[in-house]
Amino acid sequence: MIIDRLIKKIQSTGAPIVVGLDPRLDQIPEYIKKAAFAEYGRTQKAVAEIFFAFNKKIIDALHDIVPAVKPQIAMYEQFGGPGLECYFHTVEYAQSKRMFVIGDVKRSDIASTAEAYSEAHIGRPSIDGESLEVKTANFITLSPYMGYDNIEPYLENMKKYDKGLFVLVKTSNKSSRDIQDVQMADGKPLYTHVGALVSEWGRPLIGKTGYSVIGAVVGATHPEEALALRKAMPHTFFLVPGYGAQGGSGKDLAGLWDGDKYGAIVNSSRGIIGAYLSDKFKCDEKEFDRAAREAALDMKDDLRAFI
Amino acid sequence: MIIDRLIKKIQSTGAPIVVGLDPRLDQIPEYIKKAAFAEYGRTQKAVAEIFFAFNKKIIDALHDIVPAVKPQIAMYEQFGGPGLECYFHTVEYAQSKRMFVIGDVKRSDIASTAEAYSEAHIGRPSIDGESLEVKTANFITLSPYMGYDNIEPYLENMKKYDKGLFVLVKTSNKSSRDIQDVQMADGKPLYTHVGALVSEWGRPLIGKTGYSVIGAVVGATHPEEALALRKAMPHTFFLVPGYGAQGGSGKDLAGLWDGDKYGAIVNSSRGIIGAYLSDKFKCDEKEFDRAAREAALDMKDDLRAFI
Repeated sequence: MIIDRLIKKIQSTGAPIVVGLDPRLDQIPEYIKKAAFAEYGRTQKAVAEIFFAFNKKIIDALHDIVPAVKPQIAMYEQFGGPGLECYFHTVEYAQSKRMFVIGDVKRSDIASTAEAYSEAHIGRPSIDGESLEVKTANFITLSPYMGYDNIEPYLENMKKYDKGLFVLVKTSNKSSRDIQDVQMADGKPLYTHVGALVSEWGRPLIGKTGYSVIGAVVGATHPEEALALRKAMPHTFFLVPGYGAQGGSGKDLAGLWDGDKYGAIVNSSRGIIGAYLSDKFKCDEKEFDRAAREAALDMKDDLRAFI
Repeated sequence: MIIDRLIKKIQSTGAPIVVGLDPRLDQIPEYIKKAAFAEYGRTQKAVAEIFFAFNKKIIDALHDIVPAVKPQIAMYEQFGGPGLECYFHTVEYAQSKRMFVIGDVKRSDIASTAEAYSEAHIGRPSIDGESLEVKTANFITLSPYMGYDNIEPYLENMKKYDKGLFVLVKTSNKSSRDIQDVQMADGKPLYTHVGALVSEWGRPLIGKTGYSVIGAVVGATHPEEALALRKAMPHTFFLVPGYGAQGGSGKDLAGLWDGDKYGAIVNSSRGIIGAYLSDKFKCDEKEFDRAAREAALDMKDDLRAFI
């Protein structure tokens, strides 16, 4: 099962790290932009070329030391058809380099709509019986507010194509408290109930490692809550955003780990793909990929000090 | 403000109806598919042509009697770049016919990611300072699980381009109860809290009609809950799914209305765009648009009997 394979790759790299591929034009080296704008003008097509050229160098620089990437689809979607195609090209390229891909789509819908999202993002859309040759992510993220109807339509493609999910439980942002922390009748915050649901939904889909292919998104910025969820959800693998730029550190995550099975994978986006802009790694923009690699190795050290 | 203009259009048509443009290949007339497959093969491009040809005829048949359409982006997204472009072409075409467009995207993310979605779906993405000529929807739907951080990044484009939101509060599906109905410490179900938040978020953005540009999604399949929310959220306009194919009827919605300001707009998708396939309207597939018009007029009668 996909979750076992992801854990195996984390073990072989020793790095429970997923790098967020959230390209932003203002954080991409000028030399890449200049070439594409010269060829295509200031068009969606140019941006798609720029993002792909950037992602490709990041993937080339990281694929032997980091097990997974997480493209944030919003960044691509805002550049229309060419942007969305760049998302799928990035998925395909990362997989060709044997990286796992977590498509950060956070979709949220039911019934035939969820089926369409399932086909789009972990399946293989077909037209009149002919399957399209589109590579989709190994995992995607989903938002749980609509309940199990929002999860069930994905199960078929998960089984057919060996895919997985990560469902939002406790997110890393400040106003996650608006709804997720609401006190329930039993005195506990709502996210504990959502965690229990996600755990229950994932129970029939547990792999050899003891983890389910339905994982949970649990932010690094709420260490105590994350720890409590870790204990309450022993067979649920965590995708942990909020490390680095958002404030979480390796120390905050100590206690989250499950020995050599890890039990979690931590995301960093700007901290790695934008490392060349930071004071710490400041370098010529043409070395942005080398800076990303150094930042990933530093992150690995920071996490491992507490594993 | 956009909500006032929507209400005005509902008043002039007398139809508090939004037609869901959720095209599915197996429900589209053969003659449309045949032509596109012959020209483009079984490709994403062919499907985009098929969906647009279908939507265009539906819009042409409805634009003088129905105020709004609601394309479900999942249906387009599953056909990649050409599919997403078809979504935006549909938005543009409907607006050229003076229909309002509610983009059913149910996106859910924060900070710079939400900003990217905001640019994509209610803004105007720019490249190196040059705005792209993309028409975006008048309203979009959002999922609230991440809290206000998921709403705030949209406000700038809402003001700049006169756009609105509909935030999920109580959805029409059966398992909406999994999370939305969880009992809180005060004994009430969670969705009442979410409703109160949406109402509060919308308070600074109330138009001349007394309704806010931040509306709520409240399903027709839970009539009692909808009525209670209606009373608790007097300045929040409702987008109501679940009518028709999902089981809700005009009678279920009696009591939801606010006199000549209506206060709600009811969605029907399959019941209208797939009317030509139903026993009631069964007709030659080439008359699918006429059947859609008849179904929309019937829906108007059904709703108006209880307004």
